[in-house]
Amino acid sequence: MIAPPSPVWLICSYDTGGTANMMTASWAGVVCSDPPCVAVSLREATYTFGNIMSRGAYTVNIPSEELAHAAAYAGTVSGRDTDKFADTGLTAARSGLVDAPYIEECGLVIECRLIKTVELGLHTMFIGEIIDVKADREILGENGSPDPEKHRPFIYSVGGYGFYGLGGRIGSVGELAKRYME
Amino acid sequence: MIAPPSPVWLICSYDTGGTANMMTASWAGVVCSDPPCVAVSLREATYTFGNIMSRGAYTVNIPSEELAHAAAYAGTVSGRDTDKFADTGLTAARSGLVDAPYIEECGLVIECRLIKTVELGLHTMFIGEIIDVKADREILGENGSPDPEKHRPFIYSVGGYGFYGLGGRIGSVGELAKRYME
Repeated sequence: MIAPPSPVWLICSYDTGGTANMMTASWAGVVCSDPPCVAVSLREATYTFGNIMSRGAYTVNIPSEELAHAAAYAGTVSGRDTDKFADTGLTAARSGLVDAPYIEECGLVIECRLIKTVELGLHTMFIGEIIDVKADREILGENGSPDPEKHRPFIYSVGGYGFYGLGGRIGSVGELAKRYME
Repeated sequence: MIAPPSPVWLICSYDTGGTANMMTASWAGVVCSDPPCVAVSLREATYTFGNIMSRGAYTVNIPSEELAHAAAYAGTVSGRDTDKFADTGLTAARSGLVDAPYIEECGLVIECRLIKTVELGLHTMFIGEIIDVKADREILGENGSPDPEKHRPFIYSVGGYGFYGLGGRIGSVGELAKRYME
């Protein structure tokens, strides 16, 4: 499939036995501002699919570049076969707000309550209402929002090219739009 | 709203009079591999919302960095008030496959037939089945897929930080995952 550059999100959930799992997903994005919602699409064959169905919750963990190896690994093996937290040395913290774990080492964590599923074919979309966002102080910029140059998220390019980091800031929307404003 | 880095997509549609419009959207992503589908979430207040509802089609145009000014502009003004193609000097080409225009100057174009809408609140999600993908030869890499270093797409960071280009390639998923594989 030829696809556009896509985000790299680590989706965390508990299985029926309470073991924390993470998987990497790129068919994902913000889908509503009010109520604030994100969506992630998963194949039914994934371990995470059943976890979210039974727990009704998940977290979206946006990794920084230094977690690229862990993100690649978490997208390659299944939580059915191995404990990916143990394998990567990352820490599963329990959310106090939703029935899901999150990755303590991730600078930006979005805690979601499942509000809707949409079956599309090979993938089912899990729409989650954002209950809270946890951001490490060190990734925040002067205005209190996550600053990409401090957070250093990365993207996934389908077609064998893999992960790419962010480069420089091009400009704010207001600055850039001026070229065509009267 | 604190949100993760998101894609910059130019959504093109025809209004009821047949005038081509473009708008910039970032609440968007791939949502299914088979059938291949993308989704974009729009507020009902946008001109594009009514266009897609009446035409049942849209195109996703993934701009390169040199179109950052046009993308900022197309996200700032409404097609109700101005002709954004005329203002930016970009060319609206008619898709032969779906009832929507696309931007001739965009290296990567995804032509979509609307298959489902999901009302979420302020935003409604428009799920489109991918009917065709048009990629300029000059953005393709050796394996025939769009190569980010040739295409140079960019991302949007909410919170006042604006648009960011891509930096270097971190590695393929297979290479990176090896660190934790036995």
